[in-house]
Amino acid sequence: MMTVPERSALLTDLYQLTMAYGYWKAGMHEQEASFNLFFRTPPFEGGYAIAAGLPDVMEWLEGFRFEREDLAYLQSLKGNNGQPLFSPGFLQYLGELTFTGDLLAVAEGTVVFPHEPILRVQAPLIQAQLIETGLLTLVNFPTLVATKASRVCKAAQGDAVLEFGLRRAQGVNGGLTASRSAYLGGCAATSNVIAGQRFGIPVKGTHAHSWVMSFSTEDEAFETYADAMPHNCTFLVDTYDTIDGVKKAIEMGLKLKEKGHEMVGIRLDSGDLLSLSIEARRLMDAAGLESAAIVASNDLDEHSIHRLKASGARINVWGVGTKLATAYDQPALGGVYKLSALKSEDKSWDYKLKLSNDQIKVSNPGLLQVLRYTREGEMIGDLIYHEPLGHTAEKISSFYGASVALEGAEAEVLLKPVIQQGHRIIRLPELEASKQLVADQLAILPEKYQRFIGAASYPVGLDPQLAQMKQDLIKKFQGQTV
Amino acid sequence: MMTVPERSALLTDLYQLTMAYGYWKAGMHEQEASFNLFFRTPPFEGGYAIAAGLPDVMEWLEGFRFEREDLAYLQSLKGNNGQPLFSPGFLQYLGELTFTGDLLAVAEGTVVFPHEPILRVQAPLIQAQLIETGLLTLVNFPTLVATKASRVCKAAQGDAVLEFGLRRAQGVNGGLTASRSAYLGGCAATSNVIAGQRFGIPVKGTHAHSWVMSFSTEDEAFETYADAMPHNCTFLVDTYDTIDGVKKAIEMGLKLKEKGHEMVGIRLDSGDLLSLSIEARRLMDAAGLESAAIVASNDLDEHSIHRLKASGARINVWGVGTKLATAYDQPALGGVYKLSALKSEDKSWDYKLKLSNDQIKVSNPGLLQVLRYTREGEMIGDLIYHEPLGHTAEKISSFYGASVALEGAEAEVLLKPVIQQGHRIIRLPELEASKQLVADQLAILPEKYQRFIGAASYPVGLDPQLAQMKQDLIKKFQGQTV
Repeated sequence: MMTVPERSALLTDLYQLTMAYGYWKAGMHEQEASFNLFFRTPPFEGGYAIAAGLPDVMEWLEGFRFEREDLAYLQSLKGNNGQPLFSPGFLQYLGELTFTGDLLAVAEGTVVFPHEPILRVQAPLIQAQLIETGLLTLVNFPTLVATKASRVCKAAQGDAVLEFGLRRAQGVNGGLTASRSAYLGGCAATSNVIAGQRFGIPVKGTHAHSWVMSFSTEDEAFETYADAMPHNCTFLVDTYDTIDGVKKAIEMGLKLKEKGHEMVGIRLDSGDLLSLSIEARRLMDAAGLESAAIVASNDLDEHSIHRLKASGARINVWGVGTKLATAYDQPALGGVYKLSALKSEDKSWDYKLKLSNDQIKVSNPGLLQVLRYTREGEMIGDLIYHEPLGHTAEKISSFYGASVALEGAEAEVLLKPVIQQGHRIIRLPELEASKQLVADQLAILPEKYQRFIGAASYPVGLDPQLAQMKQDLIKKFQGQTV
Repeated sequence: MMTVPERSALLTDLYQLTMAYGYWKAGMHEQEASFNLFFRTPPFEGGYAIAAGLPDVMEWLEGFRFEREDLAYLQSLKGNNGQPLFSPGFLQYLGELTFTGDLLAVAEGTVVFPHEPILRVQAPLIQAQLIETGLLTLVNFPTLVATKASRVCKAAQGDAVLEFGLRRAQGVNGGLTASRSAYLGGCAATSNVIAGQRFGIPVKGTHAHSWVMSFSTEDEAFETYADAMPHNCTFLVDTYDTIDGVKKAIEMGLKLKEKGHEMVGIRLDSGDLLSLSIEARRLMDAAGLESAAIVASNDLDEHSIHRLKASGARINVWGVGTKLATAYDQPALGGVYKLSALKSEDKSWDYKLKLSNDQIKVSNPGLLQVLRYTREGEMIGDLIYHEPLGHTAEKISSFYGASVALEGAEAEVLLKPVIQQGHRIIRLPELEASKQLVADQLAILPEKYQRFIGAASYPVGLDPQLAQMKQDLIKKFQGQTV
């Protein structure tokens, strides 16, 4: 189910509409165009991202319409001279518009790298332009959170990670998207009930400080909770004094045991999680509660979890909220969407690029496709090529200097057609299958590309023929502006 | 109109439901409780926040229901022993539940400070608990973005700030909420068309690099745009070479002038905005285009705008996207929601607090109200008091050490009842009026509390009687845990 509250085509920036109007007035609007959605830098100083958001993208494109009230709103907009911004003829055209183009996409859950297309749109120019903002909104944030989740889960080394971020999420469906993406990226469950309902994600949770504060004593609070839900007892122990709380939880755990129940565990939500977890473990083990878990929360992320694990913390389950649901240390993925080809009136393709003083920011022209090479069960590099020219590379010359020979490597095409002429042509995998894809891909991505900070740059390069085409175009455009 | 995709009561963390179940089983669920929503640290190392989100909060509370499918979902949840987590009787109770409590709130757009309640809920314990997550989600993010916007607009010193962040926003209604909150906080317009439609916010935009790239030459691109929309021409000049682009825009501006139109301006989106803006201004002025604006964008925030202004940049309009819509440098407000009073069975109030080793994190007990003091048209300090005891303070003893005499100061009550017994009792102001409130309040908030970094701590303190009550409670709880 979609995380988008509505399908409105007004999910866009105004300049998409003014450009659309310009194309329409110039009679260019139905020239076929190709655009690519990609990012230039992996988030969080890491080496990769996990592509996410495709189900919403497809649902939004299929429902792409300007409704009557949308057109009425656009009709009300004025230019600087007080005259209507858009002509009635254009609004009538918009009223009949649907998305009739093609979409190629990497599967949700695919590990992706800078510069390679995650989505490729081939559609009439006006359509391809109008959908830019929506595609970016629907891909950037889920990709960011799925990536963050994969890092947090890696730090937890197989321990369960629970996503707890709804209250700090960026609006309601910011929270929904975050919960879904966190699960995709590797989390075991969420606290977000509506995400559980919508996406079938396991939900977890027991009680908060306010529960304890509602009773005269912590003992009474734990006892009342245990009476109500003997099979769901993770006691939050830090409302007053943490170690004292642990002891009270142990008493309750022993009482539960007498009654044939098992305490799930305790939760630590403040203080020195390292020493508190070690002491809590010691106390619980001494009381015979070896199987009771220690859940920790409190502004955790991959870095703090890694440090705690490395220092010997005795934590089994990690509750991660704010820093996951908002991707706190880098709350935006810089995904962009660039024109790479436009059919001219004689039906031949003109290939396009955006220049930049920074060589790495010059976009790639052409009708792009990506090959992923693996050898002996390890990913070794990705090759971007221009489909009409095919690929001839014997090695990948990475944008960042490395060179990887392709001899004996297996190649897989990453961009698959998912929408053709406006219609969905594949059935998307279930969320569980996409989650498994993430795990499978990270298992074959060498460790050096997965370092939390200062990850190596995974080799991505252009096929020599595409590289040549790009250089020729750069010369042509530079020549023109001199 | 609401930015929430639905009214579902499942917009919550699971532990709210397990606690609710616990209260219900213990027969405590209808004891009256008071909770306060507040934050402990102003965002962005600043001195204040702008309260936002009240319209959504009220709409959500009024529509608070567990629908049939919500109950079916909750019925499907299992505890650790594989048995249903919730009993049929509890689910039936939830099915009949609506919000029947009271809500007090500061007006949207009010400047607020650490520790003082932004919302106060007084309701049956089960209701007050179940709404926690929703209230936090609906207040934290809008408050954060409105605050960020107010800072960005201050840095712009009266220049228009346009919010451009939808593509990097955290989901669709993350984007909607961001656009509305940015406007509330002071922005002049948004690029987000759906936000324009929903909230009546002015929308702005002209064209992107892809427009220029769709033509063989930049000249042709500008000319085609000018033909289509002569009254809406802000030319993006950095697709190839920026100063060259400025010169081409000037040529078009002169052609437009001949035809009786006025070029709105140019937009710079990369490079050294300081020197480019100075040179562009010189070239445009020399050509007689003194009234054409220079719009700048490219990862701007209050700090970069402040530096550019201080260095003499000739920019008139600031397009701010990612760093505003995601509150990039602090993408979450740490708003919390704490129990402060609970009626016992004999109908007398027990006052509650959460202890912490950190004195400033000990929550305030009681039925809280806030007085804001002004003197000679300046805000001087806020006083938190316990309503049943009233207020007797002659000075404010700030949590952070300062002391402010109240003699001759005028006081205004900040928390106003907005929902009583589940029903809305006021008509909320229009967005424009709330936006004006932000401006009016910042005009009387002394400068030292508005510094971008290292702002002084605005004096907020407890009335002496409340302070005494808090100390007594701390002693009581500490005694109990020893």
